[in-house]
Amino acid sequence: MTAPGNDIICAPASGRGGAISIIRVSGSGCLSLVDSVVSFRKGDAASCPGFRVKFGVVPELDEVLVSVFRAPNSYTGEDMAEICCHASSYIVASLLESLCSAGCRMAEPGEFTQRAFVSGKMDLSQAEAVADLISADSAASHKLAFSQLRGAYAQRLRELRAQMMEIAALLELELDFSEEEVEFADRSKLLGLVKESLAECDRLADSFKFGNAFKKGIPVAIVGAVNSGKSTLLNALLGEDRALVSDIPGTTRDTVEELLVLDGVGYRFIDTAGLRETSEVVERMGIERSLQQMDQASVVIVMLDGTVLVDSLLPVVSAVKARLRDDVRVIWVRSKIDAAGLLSDAVPGTGSGAFCTRLGIPEVIELSARTGQGLDELRKAVSRPDAEQLAASGAVLVTNLRHQEALRQAGEHLRRVISGLIGSTPTDLVAEDLRSALTSLGAIFGEILPDDILGTIFSRFCIGK
Amino acid sequence: MTAPGNDIICAPASGRGGAISIIRVSGSGCLSLVDSVVSFRKGDAASCPGFRVKFGVVPELDEVLVSVFRAPNSYTGEDMAEICCHASSYIVASLLESLCSAGCRMAEPGEFTQRAFVSGKMDLSQAEAVADLISADSAASHKLAFSQLRGAYAQRLRELRAQMMEIAALLELELDFSEEEVEFADRSKLLGLVKESLAECDRLADSFKFGNAFKKGIPVAIVGAVNSGKSTLLNALLGEDRALVSDIPGTTRDTVEELLVLDGVGYRFIDTAGLRETSEVVERMGIERSLQQMDQASVVIVMLDGTVLVDSLLPVVSAVKARLRDDVRVIWVRSKIDAAGLLSDAVPGTGSGAFCTRLGIPEVIELSARTGQGLDELRKAVSRPDAEQLAASGAVLVTNLRHQEALRQAGEHLRRVISGLIGSTPTDLVAEDLRSALTSLGAIFGEILPDDILGTIFSRFCIGK
Repeated sequence: MTAPGNDIICAPASGRGGAISIIRVSGSGCLSLVDSVVSFRKGDAASCPGFRVKFGVVPELDEVLVSVFRAPNSYTGEDMAEICCHASSYIVASLLESLCSAGCRMAEPGEFTQRAFVSGKMDLSQAEAVADLISADSAASHKLAFSQLRGAYAQRLRELRAQMMEIAALLELELDFSEEEVEFADRSKLLGLVKESLAECDRLADSFKFGNAFKKGIPVAIVGAVNSGKSTLLNALLGEDRALVSDIPGTTRDTVEELLVLDGVGYRFIDTAGLRETSEVVERMGIERSLQQMDQASVVIVMLDGTVLVDSLLPVVSAVKARLRDDVRVIWVRSKIDAAGLLSDAVPGTGSGAFCTRLGIPEVIELSARTGQGLDELRKAVSRPDAEQLAASGAVLVTNLRHQEALRQAGEHLRRVISGLIGSTPTDLVAEDLRSALTSLGAIFGEILPDDILGTIFSRFCIGK
Repeated sequence: MTAPGNDIICAPASGRGGAISIIRVSGSGCLSLVDSVVSFRKGDAASCPGFRVKFGVVPELDEVLVSVFRAPNSYTGEDMAEICCHASSYIVASLLESLCSAGCRMAEPGEFTQRAFVSGKMDLSQAEAVADLISADSAASHKLAFSQLRGAYAQRLRELRAQMMEIAALLELELDFSEEEVEFADRSKLLGLVKESLAECDRLADSFKFGNAFKKGIPVAIVGAVNSGKSTLLNALLGEDRALVSDIPGTTRDTVEELLVLDGVGYRFIDTAGLRETSEVVERMGIERSLQQMDQASVVIVMLDGTVLVDSLLPVVSAVKARLRDDVRVIWVRSKIDAAGLLSDAVPGTGSGAFCTRLGIPEVIELSARTGQGLDELRKAVSRPDAEQLAASGAVLVTNLRHQEALRQAGEHLRRVISGLIGSTPTDLVAEDLRSALTSLGAIFGEILPDDILGTIFSRFCIGK
């Protein structure tokens, strides 16, 4: 991708198919260019005020509606036209060809949004939110992207930056009078401010773990012995929300993931393809393979077969506990509860309290995927903590790896500022570290970013945006 | 499909994917409904003049652009809004849900265009052209649909109808004075006018054969012995226009068709899947199976292997001639011309004139699919007659089976009018036949059509149109 120029760009902005297609044209002079391709009954686009729609005809091709936008009040901040034509691939291709013959060129992916950034219509974090917004597939991922687009996220970062600027100003003041060996700034107050900023940097950087999970779907593993009801549970969960289910091709051929939206939060149910396809292999591998899925999961659902002797579940429980990481949420499920009472030797331990005590687990959800008992409770157990976390965050979570890296860098610089202030580092070196921290933070907004990094960011966009 | 009512309808109008999606809303009161879903910075949609665009926010969901259209100056002729949002399936689904909660319902396929027809924005032939326009995949099919949409086709039919109305008026006048036994109309002049109308009816009905072929692609068969270069030719033709090639699933599992656009006209190259897949079977079946393709074709390309003895081609030529229908255009091709000179026993007959004389064919295209020699000549031989025919028609061809049937019916009634005028049929019966002819013709524009027929016509449309 080259840096945006002053030329006119065009691209289809809507998807293939449907009844109507939109072609976007942007750049100084684009309205006269549109006039050379579209014949209007009255007047022309070049002399039309912004936010107006004109009916026109592309001779021999189509009847179109042209929406006119004038700099700086447009998506890109430049003069723009959006041409609505009939959604035939022949018409779209012919219209783009006519526009290009008239003097514009096809836009590269993300180039419209890049121009919006360059002309100051949005900062880089907002521009990135546009791409996230388009690909959001759950209420949670949408909420984060929309909040970022609307600037709530940028606002939080700007407050952080304002605080750091204040510290910098105090240090610079001291530097100006350095010959007089005066300490203007109250060092302990200064130290407190820097520590506050560092804590906020760390908090935001750490929020990436949640932000990214909300954006991409929170990984969930269902583990347990063969025939403990894992697939039945997954099918029961999927079955109730079929429209929102999709297969995500895994990174390895062995793993598939299914996206399921529970209470607006996306969950990626990690499943090992082999587990579903060749049950004989599974029998041999025991629960070991199923336990491996715990390593990638943020939530683990442990299926404990309610139809077998309670004591026979002890090995599974201890294996799960041994493998459980601190940052993983575990949900214990006693499955096949509808059939559990049928086995006489299981009866003595059927009480949910006795069951938990014997296995040393805090609580259990009694589930029958067949009758649906406990399914809603399980669903809530999975999603409620995440939904609450999302609500508590005010939708200000880092969802972008680039932002996390920038925040981590800023944090490193702030740590050096702290040791500088505590030790005997000359003030000018401390001030230098603080400026570096500000530069790292500024990169999130797109300040002072080299062109090639900008190009990489925007090339991830789709055409027409 | 139910008859359009006075309620408010909404539907996505653009395809899936892309950067932007459009949602259409139509019906009296739809602008107030949009106001209840979208918050505008200034003013509201309900008080906004037509052909204006307003920037708004759907709280917690998206920033949108709303184009406002006011009855009768809109696509449907009703108040309308087109909402441009970001193209995420989550946003589109949520927005449609909000609109429906606010009081509109999802439109059925074609319902927007049906409303345009009902409110008199377009006649039925124009409405049908909208669907054809969207699915047009060649310049020729597009030209016919666009000409029909713009009314050139309807104009021709209206002229025909005006002539028939004039005849009807003369006959009715005579009826008014029937007691006085006066023949007002000059019978021979009247007869001449009816015959003219009939000829035009027949001409238009007959044009369906070409119109439909232009719309769907003209069927072409490449026939010849195994190894005569059929597949090589098809690949060479496809290779030069790869972007415009697509597979059309055939009606039987045996047949596939490939669409190729030559000089703007679409051709469906009929191919027998078996011919390409199992060459051993083909060897056994000889050229018989390839000849069967001639039965469905309008153009037949006969491949005559230039590397074999001329006399050995005689059976193929006579087999083709025996099977050739009158309405089929045949193109004789002498293939592998680059290698033909290498065989010494082929040399005596290499002259193109001698070759034709020996085989009893009028002319031959000398082709080498390998070097490309003759490829352009062949391409022109296929497409030139069709392109000329399309140009000569002024793009007024019947492309719709329903229209052909209406024209055939009108023709039948006119034939009865003629025999009535010649014979001693009472004038009131002749006038009745003429009125029937006018009714048949009127059905093309959608006059006096029962609701169920209308419903069938519009249900073939896509959603949002």
